[in-house]
Amino acid sequence: MLENLKNKKIILASNSPRRQQLLKEIIPDFSIQVKEVEEIAPNHLFNEEIAVYLSQLKSFAFDDLADNELLITADTIVCIYNQVLNKPKDKEEAVKMLRLLSNDTHTVYTGVTIRSNHKSVSFYDATNVTFHPISLEEIEYYIEKCKPYDKAGSYGIQEWLGYVKIKKMNGEFYNVMGLPLHRLYEELKKW
Amino acid sequence: MLENLKNKKIILASNSPRRQQLLKEIIPDFSIQVKEVEEIAPNHLFNEEIAVYLSQLKSFAFDDLADNELLITADTIVCIYNQVLNKPKDKEEAVKMLRLLSNDTHTVYTGVTIRSNHKSVSFYDATNVTFHPISLEEIEYYIEKCKPYDKAGSYGIQEWLGYVKIKKMNGEFYNVMGLPLHRLYEELKKW
Repeated sequence: MLENLKNKKIILASNSPRRQQLLKEIIPDFSIQVKEVEEIAPNHLFNEEIAVYLSQLKSFAFDDLADNELLITADTIVCIYNQVLNKPKDKEEAVKMLRLLSNDTHTVYTGVTIRSNHKSVSFYDATNVTFHPISLEEIEYYIEKCKPYDKAGSYGIQEWLGYVKIKKMNGEFYNVMGLPLHRLYEELKKW
Repeated sequence: MLENLKNKKIILASNSPRRQQLLKEIIPDFSIQVKEVEEIAPNHLFNEEIAVYLSQLKSFAFDDLADNELLITADTIVCIYNQVLNKPKDKEEAVKMLRLLSNDTHTVYTGVTIRSNHKSVSFYDATNVTFHPISLEEIEYYIEKCKPYDKAGSYGIQEWLGYVKIKKMNGEFYNVMGLPLHRLYEELKKW
């Protein structure tokens, strides 16, 4: 599959082991190169706009793509009641976020940018996730066990909390993990 | 978590590596013991009844549980338009099943039985899964790549087809993988 990209050198600009693992499922060979950017979006942007904007910011940090290179960047954010939850800076913030997510529905947006020297395509996918009630004891157990400090919204869907507390999900599971694989596959097929 | 089961010897009766992996996420220590049964359900049973019945059949194949043992058995089936899809016996049957699932919604039922010498609890969980259209080329690529002969309905949600072709899911993801972890966790907490 994706025979059209046979002669492309594909680059994933992400340190996330989850994204790397997911991309491997549809593209066997790619390299990882990351350029640090300050992940700040303009104040007038909302929800999915932020995720798309940050994926573009990460993409345009590369100003030296070779002609046969194809760059993939992504950004995932968690939103609840128009609040954007980023990575928690400490345990206290993680507890706060998870109490906010408990027994309620939030939306996970992943923005993706695919770019070559000649073309750039951006898109996003949204998944609604509903958690069962999570007790404070369970929140503390989870934070201690899984240390979700590198995850927007303080949880990984492929970790204990995701295993036992998801009540409902509307949209793509892999989007919540950090890469909307179906959309990405379709866009790469058309490239 | 699940401190109430501290003194129990937990047994999972399943050869499925996916179930073993999932159970590990909520119970660190358990052993695997499988007794073969002929997985045939009476004709008057439908859908979720079949999954629950087969989980019980697998459970009652053990007639020698010790007092401190807790046995977990499960069965997963895929249903579409009242047709039950089991594991495909060959490539032809796998192609047929996947053409049936393409561009349509099916339901995955997992029945679970938890049993000790003194008590038995059975339940099931259902997840509706909608696939995007899947071309014959993509079906053949997937079967060649992933050989889904040990999977009800001829696909694994945590494999290529699941990564790129799921349009919508209503219910628990892990139920589709073979173990409804949330329900199982709740039942074990109450045990």
